[in-house]
Amino acid sequence: MVKLSEVAKALPFSATRKLIPYAQQAAAKGVKVYKLNIGQPDVDSPKCAIDAVKAINLKKISYPDSHGNTSLREGMVKYYKGIGINVETEDIIVTNGGSEGVSIAIAATCNPGEELLTFEPFYANYKNMCIQHGVNLRTVPTHIENGFALPDMSEIEKNITPKTRALLVINPGNPTGCLYSKESLLQLGEIAKKHDLWIISDEVYREFCFTDEPHFSCMHIPGLEQNVILIDSVSKRYNLCGVRIGFLVSHNKEFMGSVLRFAQARLCSGALGQIAAEGALATPQSYFDQTRAEFMHRRNALVEALNKIPGVTAPMPTGAFYAVAKLPVDNAEKFAIWMLEHFEHKGHTVQVTPMAGFCTTNLGDQMIRIAYVLSAEELLEAVECIRLALEQYPGTIR
Amino acid sequence: MVKLSEVAKALPFSATRKLIPYAQQAAAKGVKVYKLNIGQPDVDSPKCAIDAVKAINLKKISYPDSHGNTSLREGMVKYYKGIGINVETEDIIVTNGGSEGVSIAIAATCNPGEELLTFEPFYANYKNMCIQHGVNLRTVPTHIENGFALPDMSEIEKNITPKTRALLVINPGNPTGCLYSKESLLQLGEIAKKHDLWIISDEVYREFCFTDEPHFSCMHIPGLEQNVILIDSVSKRYNLCGVRIGFLVSHNKEFMGSVLRFAQARLCSGALGQIAAEGALATPQSYFDQTRAEFMHRRNALVEALNKIPGVTAPMPTGAFYAVAKLPVDNAEKFAIWMLEHFEHKGHTVQVTPMAGFCTTNLGDQMIRIAYVLSAEELLEAVECIRLALEQYPGTIR
Repeated sequence: MVKLSEVAKALPFSATRKLIPYAQQAAAKGVKVYKLNIGQPDVDSPKCAIDAVKAINLKKISYPDSHGNTSLREGMVKYYKGIGINVETEDIIVTNGGSEGVSIAIAATCNPGEELLTFEPFYANYKNMCIQHGVNLRTVPTHIENGFALPDMSEIEKNITPKTRALLVINPGNPTGCLYSKESLLQLGEIAKKHDLWIISDEVYREFCFTDEPHFSCMHIPGLEQNVILIDSVSKRYNLCGVRIGFLVSHNKEFMGSVLRFAQARLCSGALGQIAAEGALATPQSYFDQTRAEFMHRRNALVEALNKIPGVTAPMPTGAFYAVAKLPVDNAEKFAIWMLEHFEHKGHTVQVTPMAGFCTTNLGDQMIRIAYVLSAEELLEAVECIRLALEQYPGTIR
Repeated sequence: MVKLSEVAKALPFSATRKLIPYAQQAAAKGVKVYKLNIGQPDVDSPKCAIDAVKAINLKKISYPDSHGNTSLREGMVKYYKGIGINVETEDIIVTNGGSEGVSIAIAATCNPGEELLTFEPFYANYKNMCIQHGVNLRTVPTHIENGFALPDMSEIEKNITPKTRALLVINPGNPTGCLYSKESLLQLGEIAKKHDLWIISDEVYREFCFTDEPHFSCMHIPGLEQNVILIDSVSKRYNLCGVRIGFLVSHNKEFMGSVLRFAQARLCSGALGQIAAEGALATPQSYFDQTRAEFMHRRNALVEALNKIPGVTAPMPTGAFYAVAKLPVDNAEKFAIWMLEHFEHKGHTVQVTPMAGFCTTNLGDQMIRIAYVLSAEELLEAVECIRLALEQYPGTIR
């Protein structure tokens, strides 16, 4: 009998996708499911991106360069300049979405058996990528009471060991919806400098910030140019999740040289996705203004309604398009599955993501993540379902 | 100072891309370079594939399912049925080109420190993928004298150790151009059965077979259904190298379950590439007949001309679109660089790939790989350049 590797056995199913079979069963019974489980908004992609694809004039679709199309990278240089990040074309390599960028960044910085430090709850696939590279993911808890803000620096330093190689932050955060303050990131930079750590900064939700301050990137931390690796993607910014185009960006030449060798080992990113991404660079500011206003409207409606449910706590998110709610239940995953299996209200139920998949401890056992990717009206109907489901669910704590 | 991981330091530059800077310098001097270095043919992609992309009618480009679009997988079930491979939709997962398929197959079957056994010369990126997963690539040499056929089974068995987990074959072969015989593959199957080994079978050049026999797939080996993992891709078949769509195929349900978890960790393959790949399924047989005839014509012209050069040996390839030539030189890589740096004939020179990058031993030190991806006329002009270069190169052995 042939056997699978230990890595294959250890890899969990995706946190956001675990409930899919239950949702399919609900749909098969004719129940309409409000899908608030994945970060796939209902908003249109910019027309310029789609049009660029429709306008292709190619006889064959050849290998792009391993580092990505130069025209796309030049376009990104301009984009970054517009947000105060000064990089050159050679500081950017195109990846298969932000996901591949994170995976390469981990593999290029941490040896098997070494540690990557991040903050819990964290984007679940970080753990899967660490498993694939034999790297230990160590986490510092953050708390719903202060909206999952970065912990005190002393708390972070306590978790740095001789094996720690890199800090991984996602800002604004998935699943937390938390936008980190400039002050806390500057302090994180001090820690990285003091302990010679890489900072891998996942900023794919940069366009979804709901404070009056401009987004503060780890690339803006003075004197930390050699330590910071930026993860970027067109998936959320332009709602082009399916084109699988992201970017690894760093001023560290040695790191970028190694990224190119990782990139060569998989030949290239998709030619068509790169065409869409380059087309998207012409998106007018009005698109972002409208999208941001729409998400703020949804966020406000959603969070206000959630907090009106007895026993429910939901901090106001400051970024991304996720809200976390703590529920008065025995176990949020059981509750989420129960809603799909046993609950309906006017022919509807709700699919949310239990937070346990974003944690290594029991921190999220009573929490759910809601991606506010539907209209405010639909979100309010979904919250009404959750309210009624909590009344009926046998595991509700009263 | 932050440091790179050992994996990052160990990853080599791509064998096929090492000479690119020299080729760019030649081009900058105004010398026209016949690019026979990578497997990127000059033939058109099928019009139906390009048209499918141009016809997209989408408002947004959303995440496809992690396992790939069901319609594409259903199309592939039909394709495989046509070549005598009976699989179901759930036996197929769409990957980012064949490359990601190989990488996942290695990671899912071999633990760090264990061994993957393949045949030298081998497709260079296999080594890079093994480095990334901490797996040792062990190789059994094959020889130019018999066209790089599979070695005697006793020779293969000598290289199987308690750490061997999988056999990796590429058939037809890159870089060898060798199509393995049915008999030798059946014997390989016996070895896999006897020693409980996976067979990872890379068959992306399946449509480029130049014997009268139909292609014999490892999926055709009786009684080996649980051991065989098929790597497939649309890159070569339809000359859609840039769409990055491949397939992992296996009857082994446990393996396919793990592949899905690897696939979820990177979310999905590109939506646009999948549309192109599905469009390509409508390609008429005449496309393949014409392409095959064209490549046979090129192969015959190229290999005949190469063998006329004094001291050059080039076996007739039986598959793929690569020819290997052994040159009377001190070192083929030095010669290849010298051609780009110091040689021109009527304003032309040639870029080939030194075989050293496809080997772990000195087996290929005097050999080059020629991808016959240009017209027969251009190939003959390129061979004339090689002939004259060998007359002038200081390291030619006379």
